Amino acid sequence: MKIAVDAMGGDYAPSQIVEGAVEAATKDRIPVILVGDEKAIKQELAKYPASSIVEVRHASETVGMDEHPANAIRRKTDSSIVVAANLVLAGEAQAMVSAGNTGAAMAVAIFKFGRIRGIDRPAICALLPTMNGKVVLLDAGANVDCTVENLLQFAVMGKEYAERVLKLPNPRIGLLSIGEEPTKGNELTKATNARLRSTPGLNFIGNVEGKDIFRGAADVVVCDGFDGNMVLKVSEGMAEFVLASLKKEIENSLISRLGALLAWQSLKRARSRLDYAEYGGAPLLGVNGICVISHGRSNGRAIQNAIRAAAKAVENDVVGCISTSLQEKDMAWSDNASSKATSLNKQDTIETQGKGSSSPVSQNRE
Amino acid sequence: MKIAVDAMGGDYAPSQIVEGAVEAATKDRIPVILVGDEKAIKQELAKYPASSIVEVRHASETVGMDEHPANAIRRKTDSSIVVAANLVLAGEAQAMVSAGNTGAAMAVAIFKFGRIRGIDRPAICALLPTMNGKVVLLDAGANVDCTVENLLQFAVMGKEYAERVLKLPNPRIGLLSIGEEPTKGNELTKATNARLRSTPGLNFIGNVEGKDIFRGAADVVVCDGFDGNMVLKVSEGMAEFVLASLKKEIENSLISRLGALLAWQSLKRARSRLDYAEYGGAPLLGVNGICVISHGRSNGRAIQNAIRAAAKAVENDVVGCISTSLQEKDMAWSDNASSKATSLNKQDTIETQGKGSSSPVSQNRE
Repeated sequence: MKIAVDAMGGDYAPSQIVEGAVEAATKDRIPVILVGDEKAIKQELAKYPASSIVEVRHASETVGMDEHPANAIRRKTDSSIVVAANLVLAGEAQAMVSAGNTGAAMAVAIFKFGRIRGIDRPAICALLPTMNGKVVLLDAGANVDCTVENLLQFAVMGKEYAERVLKLPNPRIGLLSIGEEPTKGNELTKATNARLRSTPGLNFIGNVEGKDIFRGAADVVVCDGFDGNMVLKVSEGMAEFVLASLKKEIENSLISRLGALLAWQSLKRARSRLDYAEYGGAPLLGVNGICVISHGRSNGRAIQNAIRAAAKAVENDVVGCISTSLQEKDMAWSDNASSKATSLNKQDTIETQGKGSSSPVSQNRE
Repeated sequence: MKIAVDAMGGDYAPSQIVEGAVEAATKDRIPVILVGDEKAIKQELAKYPASSIVEVRHASETVGMDEHPANAIRRKTDSSIVVAANLVLAGEAQAMVSAGNTGAAMAVAIFKFGRIRGIDRPAICALLPTMNGKVVLLDAGANVDCTVENLLQFAVMGKEYAERVLKLPNPRIGLLSIGEEPTKGNELTKATNARLRSTPGLNFIGNVEGKDIFRGAADVVVCDGFDGNMVLKVSEGMAEFVLASLKKEIENSLISRLGALLAWQSLKRARSRLDYAEYGGAPLLGVNGICVISHGRSNGRAIQNAIRAAAKAVENDVVGCISTSLQEKDMAWSDNASSKATSLNKQDTIETQGKGSSSPVSQNRE
């Protein structure tokens, strides 16, 4: 198994990408191919003693954070992100990781890998911390306007991911809404609640509210990409606000500052629980291949975790499991879902909201 | 000026409601009429030396938290919430406050007071803390599915509230979306962005993201009630999670516990900035009268703040200002918005999501 990593994507590329790749290759023993400007990558690699463990594949172009995703991948055929996908397509790598332009990563994955039969819209699958573990949230920003069918497919994909990769048996699936009763929420959530309840094989526990996510009320939280992205950004903003408020108050008092100094290790540990870098990348589920999208601000640690997530997805055959599950459930019903997309028929979606900032993994790029 | 307070609504009624009323009457010198079971109220009032300052009006019935809002107010004509509204209608009070069944409070306000001409859907207007002050968020849960027109009306109401009550000149109005560019978001936010940009007299600053709310990027954040309620609940959940994580880590180390003890006053102050009780009630804007809805878990402090919010809304003639602003903007266009609702024509809305838990001010009632 090898993981192709877009060395040119992200705010701290290539240095932090290279660092993460070296860490994953040495500490986790995951074979990595760094894709991008060979000279720049090798310059970074030279900083590490074990650098020879990482393969390098040259790509002459780079897709910028603000470039139009579909256009960029059509025109820049030798860009690091396209070449990384090509490596997967050719079987030279089994998964790709990118912290670059999220829309471009999604577009290239859908275009090159195609969608899994039965999936109309691939979804970004984010991991969030809870009081007692982790929760899978999808869609975290790939599809802003969704149908009941889309959300049902997200539930199936989330279940497989939680079961296969996170090793949670019979994961509890919740539908994000306001109010726990099935009749609470908007038109979409009410219709989806009814549909999920009547779908066999899903451990559907009903609606979950925003405050329940972090309490660990569900293992998988299903929602449209607008709300999923909203959850990520609001929670990021609130965490920042709480920590900043604490800091401000503590700085106002000498004795509190002394106290904070004593509690420093604990404060640091608590903070790291909130650090996106610990949760690595977000796989794009629903495509016929593994593409892990990492935060635009990814540091080495985030990239290492994204590479780990990609490796786990490969080892546990997430794509195969989703595909089998859909067939078993006889859910491969959709006419407009094809196993291989031969043209960029999801162009509208990608064009509309594909650029960096509409995705959770790029929430701080501006 | 007098404020009619529903003494029977809320998880801690009547004791905490009475406490808040006494505080507002004595410390803030706001005349209060407590409405509800006379015997129960007087028993509570007896605990306070200055209790005679608060008027009591008997009401023989109570609307429960889980009762169907429209049915409850139709049948229980002598319930505390209906009697409180009647006092406003009769001019004996100038505003009402309730921490009870949110749907019932909304229903009674719309039914009894009617809507302001030009407003199709009244909205719950919540106040949230930011790094440098406060932000007005609306709709915080009254209307789950909204139109562009609805959001435009929310913007006008939010502007008036921020300007008149919070004394923010020319308040910055943001539209909640994912991504800052006008083209980012879902169908509703994209269409609303265009509409807000072309509406004169609004200081529209464009889309704001979830993480920007707490940074104070806007003074007024406009969104549909589903997303507004989501923001409140996710931020509540995240704040809880951050504080619980800190506590857990600190408890694991003796030296950290000592540190936390030293920093205790600062931690407490930071925590109070996050306390809903400090932000009091949320006025239901768009009705021809003042109705402030308070959190179901309201303690005395929250009720006192809700009474203050009601008094400020009266003093600053929020209803009149909204009405004038709509007329000046020639926005009183809507056929289905009438100044006095003679029948419960918003029954569907109220019936669908009116009960306690779909509202921000009742987020912890379950």
